[in-house]
Amino acid sequence: MDMDKLVSLCKRRGFLFQSSEIYGGLNGFWDYGPLGVELKRNIKDAWWRDMVTGHDELSTPAGAPAPYEMTGLDCTIIMHPQVWKVSGHFDLFHDFMVDCRESKKRYRYDQVRGRWVTYREQTIFVATNVEVDKEQEDVQTRALKFFKLRNKDAEEITWTSEFVSLTTLGNDFTKVLAPDAKELGTLLEPREFNLMFKTIVGALGTAEDAAFLRPETAQGIFVNFKNVCDSTRVRVPFGIAQVGKSFRNEITPKNFTFRSREFEQMEIEFFCHPSTSREWYQYWRDRRMKWYTDMGLSTERLQLREHHVEELSHYSCGTADIEYAFPFLPAGEYGELEGIAHRGDFDLRSHMEGKLDPNSKPDLKVELGPDGKPKHRGSGKDLTYRDDLTNERFTPHVIEPSAGADRATLAFLCEAYHEDQAPDENGVMQTRVVMKLHPRIAPIKAAVFPLVKKDGMPEKAQEIYRALKKRYNVFYDEKGAVGRRYRRQDEAGTPFCITVDGQSLIDNTVTIRDRDTLEQKRISADAVLAEIETRIG
Amino acid sequence: MDMDKLVSLCKRRGFLFQSSEIYGGLNGFWDYGPLGVELKRNIKDAWWRDMVTGHDELSTPAGAPAPYEMTGLDCTIIMHPQVWKVSGHFDLFHDFMVDCRESKKRYRYDQVRGRWVTYREQTIFVATNVEVDKEQEDVQTRALKFFKLRNKDAEEITWTSEFVSLTTLGNDFTKVLAPDAKELGTLLEPREFNLMFKTIVGALGTAEDAAFLRPETAQGIFVNFKNVCDSTRVRVPFGIAQVGKSFRNEITPKNFTFRSREFEQMEIEFFCHPSTSREWYQYWRDRRMKWYTDMGLSTERLQLREHHVEELSHYSCGTADIEYAFPFLPAGEYGELEGIAHRGDFDLRSHMEGKLDPNSKPDLKVELGPDGKPKHRGSGKDLTYRDDLTNERFTPHVIEPSAGADRATLAFLCEAYHEDQAPDENGVMQTRVVMKLHPRIAPIKAAVFPLVKKDGMPEKAQEIYRALKKRYNVFYDEKGAVGRRYRRQDEAGTPFCITVDGQSLIDNTVTIRDRDTLEQKRISADAVLAEIETRIG
Repeated sequence: MDMDKLVSLCKRRGFLFQSSEIYGGLNGFWDYGPLGVELKRNIKDAWWRDMVTGHDELSTPAGAPAPYEMTGLDCTIIMHPQVWKVSGHFDLFHDFMVDCRESKKRYRYDQVRGRWVTYREQTIFVATNVEVDKEQEDVQTRALKFFKLRNKDAEEITWTSEFVSLTTLGNDFTKVLAPDAKELGTLLEPREFNLMFKTIVGALGTAEDAAFLRPETAQGIFVNFKNVCDSTRVRVPFGIAQVGKSFRNEITPKNFTFRSREFEQMEIEFFCHPSTSREWYQYWRDRRMKWYTDMGLSTERLQLREHHVEELSHYSCGTADIEYAFPFLPAGEYGELEGIAHRGDFDLRSHMEGKLDPNSKPDLKVELGPDGKPKHRGSGKDLTYRDDLTNERFTPHVIEPSAGADRATLAFLCEAYHEDQAPDENGVMQTRVVMKLHPRIAPIKAAVFPLVKKDGMPEKAQEIYRALKKRYNVFYDEKGAVGRRYRRQDEAGTPFCITVDGQSLIDNTVTIRDRDTLEQKRISADAVLAEIETRIG
Repeated sequence: MDMDKLVSLCKRRGFLFQSSEIYGGLNGFWDYGPLGVELKRNIKDAWWRDMVTGHDELSTPAGAPAPYEMTGLDCTIIMHPQVWKVSGHFDLFHDFMVDCRESKKRYRYDQVRGRWVTYREQTIFVATNVEVDKEQEDVQTRALKFFKLRNKDAEEITWTSEFVSLTTLGNDFTKVLAPDAKELGTLLEPREFNLMFKTIVGALGTAEDAAFLRPETAQGIFVNFKNVCDSTRVRVPFGIAQVGKSFRNEITPKNFTFRSREFEQMEIEFFCHPSTSREWYQYWRDRRMKWYTDMGLSTERLQLREHHVEELSHYSCGTADIEYAFPFLPAGEYGELEGIAHRGDFDLRSHMEGKLDPNSKPDLKVELGPDGKPKHRGSGKDLTYRDDLTNERFTPHVIEPSAGADRATLAFLCEAYHEDQAPDENGVMQTRVVMKLHPRIAPIKAAVFPLVKKDGMPEKAQEIYRALKKRYNVFYDEKGAVGRRYRRQDEAGTPFCITVDGQSLIDNTVTIRDRDTLEQKRISADAVLAEIETRIG
């Protein structure tokens, strides 16, 4: 699939716009248009319903070690700054950056790549920062320029390595030709750059008033763990779910909405007894994977990638990423949709004590001070749990399925995009662009058309439209040839089109057209709602 | 109604928690707990459905001048900083603050009040910053202390004015005893304080990278006006709706969630022809007022307050606030739930040209530079609209119904809180706390109970629970006396309780209890879903 075509359709049909486009846009920020907002709402609602309100806590879902409860939460984006000190984000949530003293540009250390090249006696590392498919062209052009050669002299230079990361050079950049430099050795030593957006709360504007936009929704759940236990009658095992925006000041936002600076998460923190955490981890890994396939992602483009065992902490039974073969990635590469992490008791314990088990290796570690104790202390509050049946008191272990709502939306859009051949309004075969979105998440569930704008067809169509509208987001259209109206709905991803024609007025039937199969079936006008309910499932 | 009781119930039952409570909380930030998140979701969903997806663009709704279309949008919180320069927020969205050089404290100029007082030859202004009902006690204590008098000498001092705002003194604070000072004349000249939260986007961290958290969702709609017109086939008149978080660095957040620093808005920008804007303004004023009463707010506690005619610009037909008599306000005072503003073409024109009609007085004005031209230029993009039927090109006028989702939630909670007398599980009359939330927004729609935990009652109740769960958020409870279970659901605002008892097993009937009337009706177990559907409406 051609990514440019999808990006263009998204703008043309109102799925996605660049934020503040009339002012030249803002890198890493995207707005959802009229169709996009409905699509994303449907995805978030489906997640909430499938994971939270529709979950049956009296049954044990397939694969789950035991019945469990689910509940929701909605926390603020700005939280007490101590939250981020204790979680480790304040000290450790950073990327390494390298500055170039010649171009004054800044690069993400781990994203600069390059090749070693030799010409006559001199060997240099030509660094580049462009997309993978343009790397060779870029380094070759710049190597030729550096050695003052012309294009036809390209064979005189010898590529003495494949593309490797700048990080393979350590901090010795003396032989590096930086991506925007003309001289060698202009890169400075890598420096840390915290990815949290910082702001000031309150009128005083002093350093103590610094606060951060949350880089993840998860911490809001951990700091409210006790409040949720105290205000409900949930019993371990149970999960707390949250949907909301998070912010990361990414150095290089890219790939459409894939790496944005403002994004929305759908996170669950699932609390269980330490002895069963391995099984719960397995359950959530499989449960979440199934959710994406149930919603229409093909198993060929999805993979569940377990992190290597040496990356895991001693208590952790695993971390897995659900990944999708996004079309903007090189063939064979996958991008993360969701991470399912076994976090042990790290988070609750940090917020209690600020303590760190020296053997643990979670994603982020609480930094230790010179005395070997945590630099930032926890709340001192008791966040343990007492099982009222066994009287056992313990710190629950946590399984965290953390999904990106924007990434899920993007994956569903990529998966949906199809071009096929279908007859146009004159019966001539034409290329058709169709968004094959799962009916549950399609922005518009059905469109209702009168075949022509006369003979009472509009009135009858409007009657059906109104009946459907009580339940679903439906669309009425009477403008232009019906074939063109079908095409417009195909691009919008509308799964069903209902057409009122001459026969409708005689026998009260209508046609229902299936977006994907193009099959048209004649059904009673009174049966339309039930038919759509059945087909959406 | 006693506000403290509501606040306590909200925490105890999981409607609202203070953000980051285990770290001492963060002033002006609130989290929604398990019940609160469902309540707020239901309110936002009801608004979206009633205003956007459920709106029938083929009919003229009661009171509307013409049929109209509605569409949605979801923009980022961080937008291009130029948006806020052109909108006027960068230059003019501020409060005046006064600093005290003795106490080092800072106050909002318009919120400090005080009384003039005379003792022997000396007249001073005793300023205070406490709640209205504690003002007199505060100023009296401090006046006595200042004059070195004891409590019994209180009658020796003469109050020479009622409470008035500090702003009545202009900038002459020589005779002012500041709220936390012991000496006179310690307040400094009032200074502007911008209410937008500022942050830095990108890795460079230079002044040009400053960005702001949006103080309103409205501007995202204006800057996308052209994108929406181009990507859909909407025709004027039409509205664009958006729900999302906004941020204002309020100096004095207070009154529970009423004045928060992070809050959620539900805004509509409605675009119409200038000649019909007066009628559309009237329509939206009435339509929005009706929404609140439809959702359960009583007309006695609501008022529609038209702004005074002298506050309005020449083109504007009005601005009105929908206000609610929140229980934390003094008797007879109302707090804003929603503002409906006639904004003329101010916003679209500003984003086109940065131009300002010198006679216009919208809430915020584009600031003029020394040359009399706007300090910040618009985008230069054409944001006019061409009517394809009349061929007329014009800049649409805008009616803006701007609602606060958190304030609506708070008003519904205040309205819902009731105490009455009802028999407890032993038949003894007891005070009952009941949240009479409208069934549409109640977090849990129904609870299903087996009367006792035996004889197959739990199994039958669970069967009903599962059938309801497919459609609604329902709750199953078999623990403790049934009277206590009813009470728990009354506090949660659950409108219906379904109980399976001995008779159920014989004749397949259950009782359905109404939360508000306490009436219990026996219906067929098979009719429960239909009965609840009918009652929710």
